[in-house]
Amino acid sequence: MNDLTIAVVGATGAVGTEFIRVVEKRHPDLHQIRLLASSRSAGKHLTVNGRDLVVEETTEKSFRGVDIAFISVSTEISRWLVPVAAAAGAIVIDDSSAFRMQPTVPLVVPEINGADVEWHQGVIAIPNCSTTQMAMALYPLHRVNPIKRVIVDTYQAVSGAGGAPVAELRQQSRDLLEGKPAQPRAMDHQIAFNLFPHIAEFMPDGYTKEEQKMLEETRKIMHAPDIRVSATCVRVPVYTSHSEAVHIEFERPMAPSEARELLQAMPGVQVLDDPEHNLYPMPWNVAGTDDVFVGRIRQDVSHPNGLAMWVVADNLRKGAALNAIQIAEELVTRNCLKPRRKSAVSDT
Amino acid sequence: MNDLTIAVVGATGAVGTEFIRVVEKRHPDLHQIRLLASSRSAGKHLTVNGRDLVVEETTEKSFRGVDIAFISVSTEISRWLVPVAAAAGAIVIDDSSAFRMQPTVPLVVPEINGADVEWHQGVIAIPNCSTTQMAMALYPLHRVNPIKRVIVDTYQAVSGAGGAPVAELRQQSRDLLEGKPAQPRAMDHQIAFNLFPHIAEFMPDGYTKEEQKMLEETRKIMHAPDIRVSATCVRVPVYTSHSEAVHIEFERPMAPSEARELLQAMPGVQVLDDPEHNLYPMPWNVAGTDDVFVGRIRQDVSHPNGLAMWVVADNLRKGAALNAIQIAEELVTRNCLKPRRKSAVSDT
Repeated sequence: MNDLTIAVVGATGAVGTEFIRVVEKRHPDLHQIRLLASSRSAGKHLTVNGRDLVVEETTEKSFRGVDIAFISVSTEISRWLVPVAAAAGAIVIDDSSAFRMQPTVPLVVPEINGADVEWHQGVIAIPNCSTTQMAMALYPLHRVNPIKRVIVDTYQAVSGAGGAPVAELRQQSRDLLEGKPAQPRAMDHQIAFNLFPHIAEFMPDGYTKEEQKMLEETRKIMHAPDIRVSATCVRVPVYTSHSEAVHIEFERPMAPSEARELLQAMPGVQVLDDPEHNLYPMPWNVAGTDDVFVGRIRQDVSHPNGLAMWVVADNLRKGAALNAIQIAEELVTRNCLKPRRKSAVSDT
Repeated sequence: MNDLTIAVVGATGAVGTEFIRVVEKRHPDLHQIRLLASSRSAGKHLTVNGRDLVVEETTEKSFRGVDIAFISVSTEISRWLVPVAAAAGAIVIDDSSAFRMQPTVPLVVPEINGADVEWHQGVIAIPNCSTTQMAMALYPLHRVNPIKRVIVDTYQAVSGAGGAPVAELRQQSRDLLEGKPAQPRAMDHQIAFNLFPHIAEFMPDGYTKEEQKMLEETRKIMHAPDIRVSATCVRVPVYTSHSEAVHIEFERPMAPSEARELLQAMPGVQVLDDPEHNLYPMPWNVAGTDDVFVGRIRQDVSHPNGLAMWVVADNLRKGAALNAIQIAEELVTRNCLKPRRKSAVSDT
């Protein structure tokens, strides 16, 4: 990794900030780093691996000489920038939903489908944060006992929506505690001491785009085109870490003890499941950690082949920045950096 | 109602306080009210229907001449007080889980099984708050298309655990915003900017007692002994109103439009389901209202006979105090006050 030139687009955002932290932890000798952002953040100074770096405005010329570009911006901006970076010769690891479902773009969680980086054509997508952590907990079970159906309800942190919602939760909480009204600006509704079942736009079938991602992306990551997933995605007044109540139906029964063993053996997963001692994952404690934590593992009383569990992970780490860096590591390990085939994405 | 003598045990608690508010709204001419509490709260003054009342300590003699005793205390205290009040001749409406599943005790949500008050033997139980609001949203659908299975994940407000957790959420939020650590006292874990999947004690099968209630009580209220319910009950940093993501499997398919019509026709239920205009129920807005609000009604993509929806209600109102007063009204309407059969509960 250390001889590569890396560009971080969205370097001052919630995910970009976390990306830099993870780079410093895993690759302290990586020094060819280009920090890119919108004109608003250009000129800011950030320290990365002990060196002072100036954030530059992202332009079409930003990607010259870049080996890997990590892009975490809005879906709209990704649609413009990803082909630009890929055309300049960078391998793009994109955090947006813009290219995830394109057949020529691998959608990768390295512990699950790391081999999919081998067929990249210049662009690799990171899954939606809620999907990544759920897939991490489903896959080791699915491998030995195929999953037919999943019902999942989420408890998603505001940092999943960016840095402004984090500040907004803080400000609204402060205002309400002082008896002042809460002003929603970055989000549609008041989030302090409140919650709402609406993340991303609504689809004609009544599901949101976020809920649809949990179905489609799970299928693509796990190579399980028949798995059925029904989600309700809910924004809650938590800063970091998404929590998920997951209800699984397998082809055959799965004992909780077997599930615990399989999950414990999965790299990147930790079982924290000791009800007698009040131990189960909670977002406040999981924030800032790398692993996906699973608890409340129990036989589902409503289905003979059912299992219920509770999954919590840091949405900025495994849900985004860490997963992106793991993809870059996977590219290096598998020697997939170059040469590569023609660009994966057209202009349309 | 106005000629009855009512005792309110737990008058200074979260539910007791709400009970008084609902009495003032629905029965402004009810004046024979006895406010009872623990010795700690005895001597406090409260105004009810314009009169100054002194809170008395609850003793075995408190129920002389009382027609209806509303009891909202801990399950342990209810086990002691309910038989005492019933033996003194009061009809007891109990908010605890102590007697709910006893075959001689009706478990009543008046809009669903109001007629069950007719076979009371001195004690009627109010269901668990999470169960009541779910049953209100299930029943009108179940009546026309039997429900086989329900998966529900809850987002439960701290007031469901009493007044101290409400103060604790406020204090912890303030402390964390000021950079101080949060001190859990009334609850097992920090609740500010956090959440945890643990309400009431754990059972040997890995479910909590709260989750078990959502199965057993739903069956009893709806007279549907075969319905299967799997719940994950989660405490969230919200003061009042429980939210629930509900996934239903019917005997036959149920179109969302049909579900909306059936729910709209149900007394005590309001459909708030207009995604295009960002309209769905949220706990902050529902707090302080009487109805059960349902939104996000959609065909479940993971099951041919499935329907998903989002249910929010004020846990202190329909979840407790309002439901209790509606039971008292039902007793009056159905002329079930006296004479009545022998006491329903034994000392054991």
